Amino acid sequence: MGEVPESHPRFASLMARKKLVEAAAAGLLADSALIAHGRGEAFDYLLGEDTCEPARRAIEETAARLQCAQKCVISVNGNTVALAGPHLIALAAKLACPIEVNIYYRTPERMDALLSTLHFQREEAAELYPNLVNDISNVEILGAEPNARIPNLEGPRANCHSEGIFSADTILVPLEDGDRCESLIAMGKTVCVIDLNPLSRTARTATVTIVDELSRCVPILIEELMNGSLDPPLLDKWNNEKNLQEVIDVILRRFE
Amino acid sequence: MGEVPESHPRFASLMARKKLVEAAAAGLLADSALIAHGRGEAFDYLLGEDTCEPARRAIEETAARLQCAQKCVISVNGNTVALAGPHLIALAAKLACPIEVNIYYRTPERMDALLSTLHFQREEAAELYPNLVNDISNVEILGAEPNARIPNLEGPRANCHSEGIFSADTILVPLEDGDRCESLIAMGKTVCVIDLNPLSRTARTATVTIVDELSRCVPILIEELMNGSLDPPLLDKWNNEKNLQEVIDVILRRFE
Repeated sequence: MGEVPESHPRFASLMARKKLVEAAAAGLLADSALIAHGRGEAFDYLLGEDTCEPARRAIEETAARLQCAQKCVISVNGNTVALAGPHLIALAAKLACPIEVNIYYRTPERMDALLSTLHFQREEAAELYPNLVNDISNVEILGAEPNARIPNLEGPRANCHSEGIFSADTILVPLEDGDRCESLIAMGKTVCVIDLNPLSRTARTATVTIVDELSRCVPILIEELMNGSLDPPLLDKWNNEKNLQEVIDVILRRFE
Repeated sequence: MGEVPESHPRFASLMARKKLVEAAAAGLLADSALIAHGRGEAFDYLLGEDTCEPARRAIEETAARLQCAQKCVISVNGNTVALAGPHLIALAAKLACPIEVNIYYRTPERMDALLSTLHFQREEAAELYPNLVNDISNVEILGAEPNARIPNLEGPRANCHSEGIFSADTILVPLEDGDRCESLIAMGKTVCVIDLNPLSRTARTATVTIVDELSRCVPILIEELMNGSLDPPLLDKWNNEKNLQEVIDVILRRFE
């Protein structure tokens, strides 16, 4: 894809694209993962490639929910690991929670590649967040040996760990699929998702939806938790539908 | 990607995705081609995966312009060949014009793969349009030995054939890049593009912009030409900016 100068107005977007292309070459991604990334790119373009105000409020709400969870977990897939693996490891370190690999098109090769990539990414996470270095080395990475299933969900994406996704009361799932999001909600969990399409079934089903680009919003989420001055979660007060409408209004203004 | 039943509400979109994934595996596409397809998918989703009325008018205008051209050419890249190669060959047959392969990331391997794919696709074109079978076998496929350059454009995508893109007064370019579109317009050509993003530089620069999915609109374009009852092109009367605004209105209604 050639070298991208840092001064390029779309540097972040082009770097994200580069990471995905490299991850595809390394066997981390399913066939259609690059297409899914492109769909996200289009919505990000409509958002002006910027974290909008309603997204910022959803990030704050997610930070508060993760902080007060009895037991939380971060669920990752190929695109997530490629785009923001190190940041998600740092987030897990800050929350002292596990990361669980859960993918739609599960093959032993992809699972192995993702698990070993996450182990390597600890180093980058420690460089990015030196004050979390000890916690980072303790982050548990699950996914290799699932021993439970998400009810009412077909196929291997239902496989999960009893000590991870299955028993968590709060789950952060970047780039989730709609079916699985519905099944997790049906289990009574608090589901916080990161999804660039405010109209998607995932966005409309989740407890809290952050409509933002993954590698842009996870550092903000970590910063919120680092600052430690979070209000208690608004819980009953959070209106996800209203927040999504505010994101749509941002997009509509961009069209006008 | 598994089998997709024809009854699936998004069958066409999923089949297009399948074609792209297969083309990537066959070496027809640049690294980021699947991402570009995904961006298109997102805009098509916003259009309800349907040919909207303003797109239909842009198709009619394009048909009229191609029909009255002194000399026209169809410029294709990897995604175009993968998504609609056989239909574009039939269109070229109907117009008795050449197809020219012009790609951004030009390598000898990709050029060879695209040229030979187009030659194979003649058979599928003839099956789809049996009444064009003789014309299909006569369609000239250019791109192998460019002998001219598009002025004011850097890199190998400026390479073209003097008997093709260079000398044509009217050019149909599905999935064009913004720079090249501007350079073709600067050469004084009538440039008809197919682009799912009504906000893109290509969409805003072209003479006529069809905001529609490629494999959905090319058959309609062929049908227009087959019917042969086209009004003469409106030329001075065509307002591309107004048409784009009408497409944007379709998208805005979808958000509301």
